[in-house]
Amino acid sequence: MRLRHKPWAEDFINAHPEIVIPNPEEVKGKWEEVFKNDNPLHIEVGSGKGQFVTGMAKQNPDINYIGIELYDSVIVSALENAIAAQPLPNLRLLKVNGSDLAKYFEKNDVDRVYLNFSDPWPKTRHAKRRLTHAEFLELYKSILVDHAEIHFKTDNRGLFEYSLTSMSAFGMLIKEVSLDLHVNMPEDNIMTEYEEKFSAKGQPIYRVEAKYV
Amino acid sequence: MRLRHKPWAEDFINAHPEIVIPNPEEVKGKWEEVFKNDNPLHIEVGSGKGQFVTGMAKQNPDINYIGIELYDSVIVSALENAIAAQPLPNLRLLKVNGSDLAKYFEKNDVDRVYLNFSDPWPKTRHAKRRLTHAEFLELYKSILVDHAEIHFKTDNRGLFEYSLTSMSAFGMLIKEVSLDLHVNMPEDNIMTEYEEKFSAKGQPIYRVEAKYV
Ligand SMILES: C[S@@+](CC[C@H](N)C(=O)[O-])C[C@H]1O[C@@H](n2cnc3c(N)ncnc32)[C@H](O)[C@@H]1O
Ligand SMILES: C[S@@+](CC[C@H](N)C(=O)[O-])C[C@H]1O[C@@H](n2cnc3c(N)ncnc32)[C@H](O)[C@@H]1O
Repeated sequence: MRLRHKPWAEDFINAHPEIVIPNPEEVKGKWEEVFKNDNPLHIEVGSGKGQFVTGMAKQNPDINYIGIELYDSVIVSALENAIAAQPLPNLRLLKVNGSDLAKYFEKNDVDRVYLNFSDPWPKTRHAKRRLTHAEFLELYKSILVDHAEIHFKTDNRGLFEYSLTSMSAFGMLIKEVSLDLHVNMPEDNIMTEYEEKFSAKGQPIYRVEAKYV
Repeated sequence: MRLRHKPWAEDFINAHPEIVIPNPEEVKGKWEEVFKNDNPLHIEVGSGKGQFVTGMAKQNPDINYIGIELYDSVIVSALENAIAAQPLPNLRLLKVNGSDLAKYFEKNDVDRVYLNFSDPWPKTRHAKRRLTHAEFLELYKSILVDHAEIHFKTDNRGLFEYSLTSMSAFGMLIKEVSLDLHVNMPEDNIMTEYEEKFSAKGQPIYRVEAKYV
């Protein structure tokens, strides 16, 4: 993700508390007050410009979605997408670090985690930063309902190989795997920005659904 | 595998009891008598023309290998390979159906199972014939030592996707995965006939090491 400095980003984000949640630590354990219903809550960690989470929110009005993104300069694009898609009461954005999820969510707050085209961190010494490292799987578990699923898409072969073994070693069930998602494109597949870019280059898109057991 | 009728095949096989084991049900539980040592025993189910199992036997003299193949017309090629490679005291061939393994091996007889480019049986109604179906995983377990591994290579995406989920659902650990084996070719990789054919066409070779836990 290219990071351009956008000096207006912070003001723009602060001007939209109805979409980018301000003070998220205060809603921990009571997300149904934010969404004004107790529908299932699915989060995407590293949601980038938000095409996936916005598309999912439109497709599934009875599920609440939160796109989580670390950078101002990136989340502003997601915010623009979200504004353009209004009314979309089941979508929120959260500008925080995925490592800090436990500050904003408690056990059973979340029903599913999506990871899409997460940064690969190919060097072994950076393995802990991969969003499918055991420490992240433990973190997600601590905020998810029991038996929840993680759905992960990527074009990155090394990260996908790593993630399958990491999830399996964590004791998760590898429930569903596709090694070339676009060959039999699922009807309900919502493409992310990176997915469009890499599949246009002819690269296979990998996908897994893994379940805590 | 093209099946040509080879009328001389049966006689040729019978003439080589030192390689193609006659009356294998009689050695069940006492394979160390066949090999005259108690080294680990690795078997390949569906070994075709035997290039892999012969290569492995040469590479690893302290491991015993058995190539298991159903068809006369195919196993004769493996036999020719094996004869050409003599002396190779740690290699045998077995002309039986993989479904019948329990007739020839008892619990703890076998230390590892190799599957290479197994027939894909793509139709759902034939799923039970796939060599990574739960019934086969159960069968292998009944002849393997505890915590043994299955090493599986294939070019077939559908079969590989199926196998990952089947092994995981069986409770096996997905220990190691490669989604393009030949990109970082392991130094000790022994190519099978099918592997040479499909990788020459530029197709990715998939590989998994899965472990009973
Ligand atoms: C490669 S991009 C993929 C974006 C989007 N999911 C897609 O598929 O098009 C990864 C995104 O994850 C964000 N990210 C990386 N680490 C993060 C973390 N620890 N917490 C929140 N976001 C993170 C990055 O800023 C970047 O926007
Ligand atoms: C596609 S070929 C692959 C041969 C070799 N492993 C390779 O990679 O080149 C599959 C082989 O498995 C054998 N086979 C299929 N089902 C079998 C079974 N149930 N028992 C023993 N052999 C079997 C077939 O006869 C065939 O030779």
